[in-house]
Amino acid sequence: MELKEVGEFGLIERLKAGAIVAPAGVVMGIGDDAAVLKTEPGYLTLAATDMLVEDVHFTLATATPREIGYKTMAVNVSDIAAMGGIPEQALVSLGLRPEQPVEFVDELYAGLRECGRRYGVNIVGGDTVSSPRAMVINLAILGRVEAVACLYRHGARPGDILLVTGDLGGSAAGLDTLLAPQPAPEAAVSWARQRHLRPSPRVAEIRAALAAGGLTAADDISDGLVAELYTLAAASQVGLILEAEAVPIAPATRQLAAIYHKDPLEYALYGGEDFELLLTCRPDRVEAIWEAVNRACGTPVTAIGRIVPAAEGLSLIQKGRRMALKPGGYNHFQHDL
Amino acid sequence: MELKEVGEFGLIERLKAGAIVAPAGVVMGIGDDAAVLKTEPGYLTLAATDMLVEDVHFTLATATPREIGYKTMAVNVSDIAAMGGIPEQALVSLGLRPEQPVEFVDELYAGLRECGRRYGVNIVGGDTVSSPRAMVINLAILGRVEAVACLYRHGARPGDILLVTGDLGGSAAGLDTLLAPQPAPEAAVSWARQRHLRPSPRVAEIRAALAAGGLTAADDISDGLVAELYTLAAASQVGLILEAEAVPIAPATRQLAAIYHKDPLEYALYGGEDFELLLTCRPDRVEAIWEAVNRACGTPVTAIGRIVPAAEGLSLIQKGRRMALKPGGYNHFQHDL
Repeated sequence: MELKEVGEFGLIERLKAGAIVAPAGVVMGIGDDAAVLKTEPGYLTLAATDMLVEDVHFTLATATPREIGYKTMAVNVSDIAAMGGIPEQALVSLGLRPEQPVEFVDELYAGLRECGRRYGVNIVGGDTVSSPRAMVINLAILGRVEAVACLYRHGARPGDILLVTGDLGGSAAGLDTLLAPQPAPEAAVSWARQRHLRPSPRVAEIRAALAAGGLTAADDISDGLVAELYTLAAASQVGLILEAEAVPIAPATRQLAAIYHKDPLEYALYGGEDFELLLTCRPDRVEAIWEAVNRACGTPVTAIGRIVPAAEGLSLIQKGRRMALKPGGYNHFQHDL
Repeated sequence: MELKEVGEFGLIERLKAGAIVAPAGVVMGIGDDAAVLKTEPGYLTLAATDMLVEDVHFTLATATPREIGYKTMAVNVSDIAAMGGIPEQALVSLGLRPEQPVEFVDELYAGLRECGRRYGVNIVGGDTVSSPRAMVINLAILGRVEAVACLYRHGARPGDILLVTGDLGGSAAGLDTLLAPQPAPEAAVSWARQRHLRPSPRVAEIRAALAAGGLTAADDISDGLVAELYTLAAASQVGLILEAEAVPIAPATRQLAAIYHKDPLEYALYGGEDFELLLTCRPDRVEAIWEAVNRACGTPVTAIGRIVPAAEGLSLIQKGRRMALKPGGYNHFQHDL
């Protein structure tokens, strides 16, 4: 059986078995945005890692080395934010072609450092090796969260409200403008490309939301809203109802969708790489969370649906009709490459 | 300027600048076997990472997936041992070809887990992505050490004795038997291949040695003894004298050297990947360390030279003659690939 038949998620299930040999220090192993480890009393250590491969996750045709570095750090910071934590330390492994100019690496690192500075993340170590056939970047990140504040994907309960920070679909629209440039308003193109190339992980937002209380689960949107909804529902053993009209989509995303003959909702639901946070909270805390995040960061928080019992499954309400929520999103090994 | 002109170590120097933006929690960033971080009182967290690229660090022609997995874990465990620590948690990123059989990944993971079990290391997370052109494995490891016990490369002082655990050169001999099989005694071939494919990081040994007291610095031998001696001398700002005849070389390594028309000392000094520990200690503790390690683990510890002031440089004594120690060892980007 080949990997592309099993898929990324089938593979992860196989890899979990027997992975923990000394359980005392492990609160959560494989299966959330970050591993959760016991260290100092009252706090938990968060650890996550992401690998980016040239011409799979990025291509030099559409991103500068600085942008690649920035995004590599940002996607890892987002994993820590998705647990409610504060990112602190990073280890960076680079697999580089020997003929690559050293200035290329300087720029890549400048991007890593720029994002690291913005979020207070040190680069404390790494590995640099040669990788003649394709560049590879791996970042491992450590963060920290108060034990009482840590948010998992498995915490959602029927009756909870589904929230999302910021807006969705901008990154997918930006990718379209990079892959197939079309005449389009410059402001929209530049905004959407920023969304794709320099995502803003929601660390300050989750910290502000935690202070308001009532959060029950969190996940960051890397593979697309619907993919993350399926992940969250499976982890929490719940169903959910998504309100299509409530999903926040920026005007620039709608503008570009029209130009690219795409449905803006398709961008928002299946596009991925927005690195916004999907949250669930108790219904009486929606307003307090909205106010806390908005006051601290100016970032909107939008209610987009609610959690229901598992038996009801995952559904979408669009134009007053309720239908099954079509699964989808990025899955490694099951895409043409 | 291309990477191969700058070399791995020149590149690392460039990457250090500006890497630390929040210094409070960082005892040691880039520049030792592992980063050293402050977490719980009395203890330090160790963090290291290693990337292995297909056909650079391993090839499917000479290693099974299980062996590749085992070695990936072992080289990272060795980084923690080189700081005096106990390895605890690992994050594993895999870049795989979509057409790779899933059994391949199962076996790779079986190797990772086998070594993890042996050293008490959990696999707590990771990332699985597609990498169509070459397989890539990245492991990030976390460990823990008492703050008073942590060993750095920079601790060696003139008058200290140079020690090495186990024996050297076996891994390089094993690699020769894999790359160019020759008629040779089966026991020697099988032993040397084990040394190359399933290294034994010296965790129990360093813990036993620490208990005996008097250790001043440590480094693990991945790039070759001489390369590590240069690294240790530069970090400690000292010189050293290496006694060629004292370097421990196993009989099987000598047997294979004869068959491959190599100098066994060349294997031991420049071969690399032995994952033994290079240690320095105060001269009055040599015997106590030897006894402690030997009693706890049965592993020999051999005095191979001594630390001298930096002005004396690095030298080799062979057959009563003292000469400059020729530098050498593995350096990424400066080898033909």
